[in-house]
Amino acid sequence: MQRYEIRLAGTGGQGQILAGIILAEAAAIYEGLNAVQSQSYGPESRGGASKAEVVISDGEIDYPKVTVPDFLLVMSKDAWGKYGQGIGSKTKILIDSTLVSIEQDSVPEGTRLYKLPITGMAKDLGKEIVANIVALGAITAISGVVSRDAVEKAVLSRVPKGTEELNKKALSAGYDAAMSLVAVEE
Amino acid sequence: MQRYEIRLAGTGGQGQILAGIILAEAAAIYEGLNAVQSQSYGPESRGGASKAEVVISDGEIDYPKVTVPDFLLVMSKDAWGKYGQGIGSKTKILIDSTLVSIEQDSVPEGTRLYKLPITGMAKDLGKEIVANIVALGAITAISGVVSRDAVEKAVLSRVPKGTEELNKKALSAGYDAAMSLVAVEE
Repeated sequence: MQRYEIRLAGTGGQGQILAGIILAEAAAIYEGLNAVQSQSYGPESRGGASKAEVVISDGEIDYPKVTVPDFLLVMSKDAWGKYGQGIGSKTKILIDSTLVSIEQDSVPEGTRLYKLPITGMAKDLGKEIVANIVALGAITAISGVVSRDAVEKAVLSRVPKGTEELNKKALSAGYDAAMSLVAVEE
Repeated sequence: MQRYEIRLAGTGGQGQILAGIILAEAAAIYEGLNAVQSQSYGPESRGGASKAEVVISDGEIDYPKVTVPDFLLVMSKDAWGKYGQGIGSKTKILIDSTLVSIEQDSVPEGTRLYKLPITGMAKDLGKEIVANIVALGAITAISGVVSRDAVEKAVLSRVPKGTEELNKKALSAGYDAAMSLVAVEE
């Protein structure tokens, strides 16, 4: 694995930054890779859309920002409008189908589009706030960039005490649902 | 203000990343500046020291990482060992004197060294965990890079519900104590 770029896009309050930090820590602390996690705030950050980025590599990371994402998570319509432009022909796109609707014919050819009702699944677990962890499970399954085990360890070291079980369930729900999408595809 | 680089260094669990996010959001969302907040995880992240970075500018931020910090926060001995090397002759250094001891003659000439018992002050407020917010208050006072008002708004939008008053007190404690250091200096 040389360089893998992930962009997590949504609205403020969905926990994209925390998901990015967990992914970076899973890669670096538990898998021995290098990672940079960042958020850039420009004029667009005063609007509704927000994003967090993670670059993972087994070598040095010279440029710490995402250029063309290998993976794009989209958790709001605004975020799709703003960050859907920069995708490449090999980008894997995961959309939260509870909140956003995108059709295969509106993305570049070659792009893989995955749809999961991420926020709906989080609500089913009793807490909409764990939608970011459901998404993280799905990203882990689809991207294969870090192991499920490493991500679970990183989740448990970051979430508030007393919420470990809920977050483990959220991670599993996202992982399992995405694995079944990936299986259908193969 | 062209470009202002801040490095927050300590050990895992001290909340440096959250402090960095709050500082970036204060600058971007409440002051209309541009900001990038990042953490790089390399081989050294498997040890004890950890750091978070913020770059703030009124123009475009081409390179999102800290090159020579204008401001360095040091909250552990290990962090000083690892990140004390990259300082320039104009770096302002704030050390948590509860945890680290550095003498003026061990930093480059021209460097300004500020000492505050950050963790001790947080303990006095009843919660050691708010040491990062005490530090944030002190950084605000010493750097002048963002206003106290913007930082307070950003703190309140990020901290858990029910902890607002405690965090406001922590911010004030750090701000006021650092202002008195700055006053002595002038």
